[in-house]
Amino acid sequence: MSVTYEDVVGAARRIAGHVLRTPVLEISPGVFLKLEQLQHSGSFKVRGAFNRILSAGRLPPSGVIAASGGNHGLAVAHAARALGVRAEIFVPDVTSPVKIAGLRALGAEITQGGAIYSAAAEAAAKRAAETGALEVHAYDQPEVIAGQGTTGLELVEQTGGVDTVLVAVGGGGFIAGIALGVSGATRASLADHGSGGTLGDRDTGAGAALADRGTATRVVAVEPVLIPTLHDALEAGRPVPVSVSGVAADALGATQLGGLAFEVCSRAGVSSVLVPDEAIVAARRTLWDRHRVVAEHAGATAYAALLSGAYTPAPGERVAVMVCGSNTDPATLA
Amino acid sequence: MSVTYEDVVGAARRIAGHVLRTPVLEISPGVFLKLEQLQHSGSFKVRGAFNRILSAGRLPPSGVIAASGGNHGLAVAHAARALGVRAEIFVPDVTSPVKIAGLRALGAEITQGGAIYSAAAEAAAKRAAETGALEVHAYDQPEVIAGQGTTGLELVEQTGGVDTVLVAVGGGGFIAGIALGVSGATRASLADHGSGGTLGDRDTGAGAALADRGTATRVVAVEPVLIPTLHDALEAGRPVPVSVSGVAADALGATQLGGLAFEVCSRAGVSSVLVPDEAIVAARRTLWDRHRVVAEHAGATAYAALLSGAYTPAPGERVAVMVCGSNTDPATLA
Repeated sequence: MSVTYEDVVGAARRIAGHVLRTPVLEISPGVFLKLEQLQHSGSFKVRGAFNRILSAGRLPPSGVIAASGGNHGLAVAHAARALGVRAEIFVPDVTSPVKIAGLRALGAEITQGGAIYSAAAEAAAKRAAETGALEVHAYDQPEVIAGQGTTGLELVEQTGGVDTVLVAVGGGGFIAGIALGVSGATRASLADHGSGGTLGDRDTGAGAALADRGTATRVVAVEPVLIPTLHDALEAGRPVPVSVSGVAADALGATQLGGLAFEVCSRAGVSSVLVPDEAIVAARRTLWDRHRVVAEHAGATAYAALLSGAYTPAPGERVAVMVCGSNTDPATLA
Repeated sequence: MSVTYEDVVGAARRIAGHVLRTPVLEISPGVFLKLEQLQHSGSFKVRGAFNRILSAGRLPPSGVIAASGGNHGLAVAHAARALGVRAEIFVPDVTSPVKIAGLRALGAEITQGGAIYSAAAEAAAKRAAETGALEVHAYDQPEVIAGQGTTGLELVEQTGGVDTVLVAVGGGGFIAGIALGVSGATRASLADHGSGGTLGDRDTGAGAALADRGTATRVVAVEPVLIPTLHDALEAGRPVPVSVSGVAADALGATQLGGLAFEVCSRAGVSSVLVPDEAIVAARRTLWDRHRVVAEHAGATAYAALLSGAYTPAPGERVAVMVCGSNTDPATLA
């Protein structure tokens, strides 16, 4: 079981029309925000959900099943409703009534149970075995990773290519997909247009610069100090359990990096930068104050690396920041 | 004194690098949001401010002067700071301490006085006559209109052309500029690329459709029922005073349409659609709930026409909605 650039291209074809092509904002010369928080259901997660469901062919009458009280649950419920498919979402006991109401509003059937996420996930897997429903994993499935990777394809097309992409990491599905999407797209760009060419629709100079340097796009993981799933996996040479806490735990709080994500990220040479919670809080605040972008803490985590200096680009380096979620209460920005 | 498409093209060249190229989000097939609320200072007003100041050549030591406790004041203060120019902003007594603090934070000198806006405007004009400072009007100057119109140029490039643009109106500077920008750009598109061509960077099919129909882009004004500046001017055949109230009065509350705007809008065949305050409130709420876009009431007014059905596109009609301001307290969206 693996996942490739070609899978991402296939996913883009499959989910076109179901997801938004989210816009890119160049906030200063060569610094791009990919505004994926404007995506349906408020996060990138619908890309993977649509790709997983649409890849399955004929679905059982029991529909789809997922475990998540957060962005993944919302995304699966959104995709299932859009496709006219039954969705069962398992959420842990701690899930807030507001989130449960949000899932119900999307037409999902909710089963609450288990003290923590992993208990809900186990219950979902057991139920799927009984009913035959299609499981949509939050990150560790090839179709899910390929779907998330379509964000990377778009980024390259929209910017003409960047040197570096900063991406927040939880279970690793998003960053693995992006690593596939941007590396493949850069390769395709060179093949299709010659060494000075670009796939991009705006900034041909940038694409040319990228090609001239002969480098692939670097993908850099940004992780909360309090949830270092990729950082610890890179150190250990394999995914290992981490403790999970802090402001971004509701969306990045995987207890361990996915196996597929580790394989892809290792192969792609993804590195990791850690940011403290204070930097994430400041980044979320600055995204609103300075750029009028509303993001949840997880969605602001990649930007935190840039704002805090945890990642400092070289002169002239073109950097893209994935703003990946907006499921937050705007009142907390007042 | 007039203003033309060529002035808009000149403005685009002049202000490039000083303003953001704000992104476009296609929320459903053929329906585009131009996210101008992401612009520096939170509204389109910086475009006109930069163009006015940069057109002036050598500035007097007294710098620039403007009257506004709102978006225009923020925009002039932003542009002046960016260009290293002194800015004096006259605001009426009613201006909130928060807004004054915002202007001060941008380095502007504030003079508070006068019960209403027009009194502050008179004081500003008197002061300008004494000091020789360059006046930047909120809407009724050719350089200001030409600057705002660059939003229209971008829209055509980014979408490949639309059939209709919906724009909120106060004094009329924004809509007049857009009417110039989109009509000229459509013309240029046809001239440059033949009847099936397009200036756009994404959707050549759309540009071709537009050209095939042989129609220019229609510009439709959306006005609060409680501030019908263009509506009443079109009925009277000239700008006339209107009463001003309602949720969008802080940003659309001009007491009369500008003379230049009237001239341009009449020539361009701009029509007007009225929306009640309840529709504006619902549109602002829906922009957040459904699209994760935070707008002020004025910024959501154009979208209100679409959402409420006050403007209903024909089947297949391609429509762009200008989301033009985000200077609002996000807590009110909780």
